[in-house]
Amino acid sequence: MRPPLVHDITSAANPVFKTLKSLADKKARREHRLFLAEGLRVCTEALEAGRTPAYLIYAEDAQGHPLTRALIDATGEARGMVIRSTRDLLHRLTGKDNPGAVAAAYAIPDTSLALIDRGTAPLWVVAENLKDPGNLGTMLRTCDAVGAGGVILLDQCCDPFSLEAVRASMGALFTRKVAQASGDEFLAWLSSGPGQLVGAALDGRTVDYRAHAFSAPTFLFMGNEQSGLPADYAQACDALVRLPMLGTADSLNVAVATAVLLYRALDQMDPLATG
Amino acid sequence: MRPPLVHDITSAANPVFKTLKSLADKKARREHRLFLAEGLRVCTEALEAGRTPAYLIYAEDAQGHPLTRALIDATGEARGMVIRSTRDLLHRLTGKDNPGAVAAAYAIPDTSLALIDRGTAPLWVVAENLKDPGNLGTMLRTCDAVGAGGVILLDQCCDPFSLEAVRASMGALFTRKVAQASGDEFLAWLSSGPGQLVGAALDGRTVDYRAHAFSAPTFLFMGNEQSGLPADYAQACDALVRLPMLGTADSLNVAVATAVLLYRALDQMDPLATG
Repeated sequence: MRPPLVHDITSAANPVFKTLKSLADKKARREHRLFLAEGLRVCTEALEAGRTPAYLIYAEDAQGHPLTRALIDATGEARGMVIRSTRDLLHRLTGKDNPGAVAAAYAIPDTSLALIDRGTAPLWVVAENLKDPGNLGTMLRTCDAVGAGGVILLDQCCDPFSLEAVRASMGALFTRKVAQASGDEFLAWLSSGPGQLVGAALDGRTVDYRAHAFSAPTFLFMGNEQSGLPADYAQACDALVRLPMLGTADSLNVAVATAVLLYRALDQMDPLATG
Repeated sequence: MRPPLVHDITSAANPVFKTLKSLADKKARREHRLFLAEGLRVCTEALEAGRTPAYLIYAEDAQGHPLTRALIDATGEARGMVIRSTRDLLHRLTGKDNPGAVAAAYAIPDTSLALIDRGTAPLWVVAENLKDPGNLGTMLRTCDAVGAGGVILLDQCCDPFSLEAVRASMGALFTRKVAQASGDEFLAWLSSGPGQLVGAALDGRTVDYRAHAFSAPTFLFMGNEQSGLPADYAQACDALVRLPMLGTADSLNVAVATAVLLYRALDQMDPLATG
């Protein structure tokens, strides 16, 4: 294997750097079909999940690290662009005060619902009109932990490929599926195969989440941060579950509620062996 | 009751406005012993919890709203300063594109551990070196939901009175207790009364969280976002619990992990009646 060609970029005025930096904006991400991830750990997880960077940018002082080397080699082999740079430019790229050794731009994957194979996981999350990329990333991270397949985004959700979502996912964006669809598309797709649609709701015909029998595959349906699940979506659910709310507030953070429900479903599907 | 004296502020150069705006910085919060909260709903929850603003600032167009009126009256009665202003200045104050009708500055409460009455709640959260104010606020919000008493912050945690923490808490900062202490102070205080210290950990002598018998009062001990619970703190715990991690990631978001454990403990202490 030949050593990969390395490009040096030391100025923020470099056009490649400017393109990478522009990926902070959704419009540029859509135009270039690329998104950014940062940090040796996340980029290494991506590599282990079979995803190599289209562009890899690393701090010169980190080039001796074996994980950096592995990323450089893999990027070169996949004919990605390998860029040697500085911590200062990495800081400017990611906005982090204490930037990691590497950042990378990856091709945005196809997020068609048709690519979701529901049989590959017992649990899936469906999010409607989710606005906060931190919540979305955190939900993906939890999906990884419980063995859920990923998140299906309905209607006007935030962009799963923003730096904030990628960051909060802690690498789970590379190991979980993400799909984007309209509500109608999703409901039609759902009815074409097995699956229980379980909505998280605060009122209406809800049951305490502990009284619900989750069965695989469960599609856990979470609504918008402010307004929850719209009535017509709630109507479409096979069951609606609620979490006990003992205090004065009337809702939980959506990523928190998702996690409590996913762990409950996991416990039911895969209970702790006793004895 | 006389109508309260109302001050008009229409310029960001107004010295009172500048003081309120400075509360975005921790140093200014400490100097003035004040912190900011925003939004009609949160400020009304604060009022219901018996907390009146030292300064109330409202958008003129919102003065007819009955909740705004209630806040104006309560602030005036408590000899706080009532300020009539504009959405533009509220936007400048809170940084929100779509600012609420009101914002308010409240006296920072005493956060001495001595003020925590452990008998008032079956669950408490203890956080060590927690860095993200969004996580802290979310944990307080979950505490409210499960009837936990509040959060005890050890060592170098983020400031619970930052706008970001207050915002994420969705009003729970006003209904839950917050204490700040060193680890030594906390462990001494803990041993002066009943309480089970249950640490969340990833390895070591952990048990699956479903195998642990939570008993009131439980102090759920959560470590730093990056590094988890330090070994000496883990050593001090009565038990260490872990959550199943089925994927490639090795940890959950700390507010998520806290919520799953709190709901589990709540379920054990107050199980769903069947039949």
